[in-house]
Amino acid sequence: MPSCRSMDSRAGLAATPRALPYYVAFSQLLGLTVVATTGAWLGLYRGGIAWEGALQFNVHPLSMVIGLIFLQGDALLVYRVFRNETKRTTKVLHGLLHVFALVIALVGVVAVFDYHRKKGYADLYSLHSWCGLLVLVLYFVQWLVGLSFFLFPGASFSLRSRYRPQHVFFGAAIFLLSVGTALLGLKEALLFKLGAKYSTFEAEGVLANVLGLLLVGFGVTVLYILTRSDWKRPPQAEEQALSMDFKTLTEGDSPGSQ
Amino acid sequence: MPSCRSMDSRAGLAATPRALPYYVAFSQLLGLTVVATTGAWLGLYRGGIAWEGALQFNVHPLSMVIGLIFLQGDALLVYRVFRNETKRTTKVLHGLLHVFALVIALVGVVAVFDYHRKKGYADLYSLHSWCGLLVLVLYFVQWLVGLSFFLFPGASFSLRSRYRPQHVFFGAAIFLLSVGTALLGLKEALLFKLGAKYSTFEAEGVLANVLGLLLVGFGVTVLYILTRSDWKRPPQAEEQALSMDFKTLTEGDSPGSQ
Repeated sequence: MPSCRSMDSRAGLAATPRALPYYVAFSQLLGLTVVATTGAWLGLYRGGIAWEGALQFNVHPLSMVIGLIFLQGDALLVYRVFRNETKRTTKVLHGLLHVFALVIALVGVVAVFDYHRKKGYADLYSLHSWCGLLVLVLYFVQWLVGLSFFLFPGASFSLRSRYRPQHVFFGAAIFLLSVGTALLGLKEALLFKLGAKYSTFEAEGVLANVLGLLLVGFGVTVLYILTRSDWKRPPQAEEQALSMDFKTLTEGDSPGSQ
Repeated sequence: MPSCRSMDSRAGLAATPRALPYYVAFSQLLGLTVVATTGAWLGLYRGGIAWEGALQFNVHPLSMVIGLIFLQGDALLVYRVFRNETKRTTKVLHGLLHVFALVIALVGVVAVFDYHRKKGYADLYSLHSWCGLLVLVLYFVQWLVGLSFFLFPGASFSLRSRYRPQHVFFGAAIFLLSVGTALLGLKEALLFKLGAKYSTFEAEGVLANVLGLLLVGFGVTVLYILTRSDWKRPPQAEEQALSMDFKTLTEGDSPGSQ
């Protein structure tokens, strides 16, 4: 009954695509494995984690992986997972996950700058750090622009519709750049410590390579769920009311509440 | 005149989106700058290129950047650039660009294995090499499956329609993984040679970081052109004939030739 679609959505009856939950479950399994493997690498081969002393550096990779990989990835998936909640609830969850991601990432950034300062190391000389800085700036700008367009009521419907695809594209691009930056950082940490021993298939090197492939796998899985067109969230009553204004005017339908 | 659309397309009258040529031009400028900067890096700081001797290694980065970055990226853009040529011509061009990319990449792969063999270095121990191997296998499989689905007449229309989004997704994913693998290789080459000098902002390090950002920029630009939904190639007469079968049957339209 296509004419009842907006009522169905509101009542929570929109169907979830059959394969979607399995892909989402797989992405979460991969994401948690990435976090656990990062923890295992730091625990087994880098002495664990502490804010004071030489172990402060290790706060950096763990925070960045939890914040800018796992939480950022999950924030992108919110609209695929929560299909029948109100748009406003989903938006708030999406924004909050990104806030958590940003705060945890900032802890990781402070950790590495503080560690460098105490050790007298130079900052921001490597490709990893340049990419990381780019990610942080883009991430913050994207969050601010997203907030002002979608969460505040000021932006018009047509303005939001035009910005939405840009927001989605840059969200995906920033996430992928975060994954790439993590790979560069992992490689840097390996080569600084292992050097030529990397080529003898040291256990740490192999574990870190596996972690790299897991990071790639998580990135690809999130991107797949995000871009599959038949898995997009169906429009809800509040949106249909707006997009159907013209239809309403011409056919005399009753729009859903806004 | 929507009813004349298939005739218009056939006659080459489908309009090109206004901003598209500027984005394509920008992508080509970036792509060529990536190739030129790779050449400049190898020429200025690595002694240039030769198949024999120590310079054989340098064939690897240049070939991979020309093949798996520039040509692969351009192969993805073929359907956005050639909007009014027949689907078959565009497909052949897309397939040919991917063949060139693969052949040039294979030269680069042979160069590095041959160099390692002569020097007695270990193979396939690093994250860069694992990602590179993954890219090559996926690229070859994608090319074979793409060829059998789209270029040979055996596959049915519905089978092609179902496979097309998967082909596009994995094409984009393989391209992005190629960019990530190039960044890992660049970082590896830098750290092996510069070591701690990397942190003193050596000219080679800065140039290589710029090359890394250019690679990221090319990847993002190609992805943007590829994914913008209003820039997708409009269906041509031959496809419309198939997708309009039902319309034809019910309305008595004359389908275009297949």
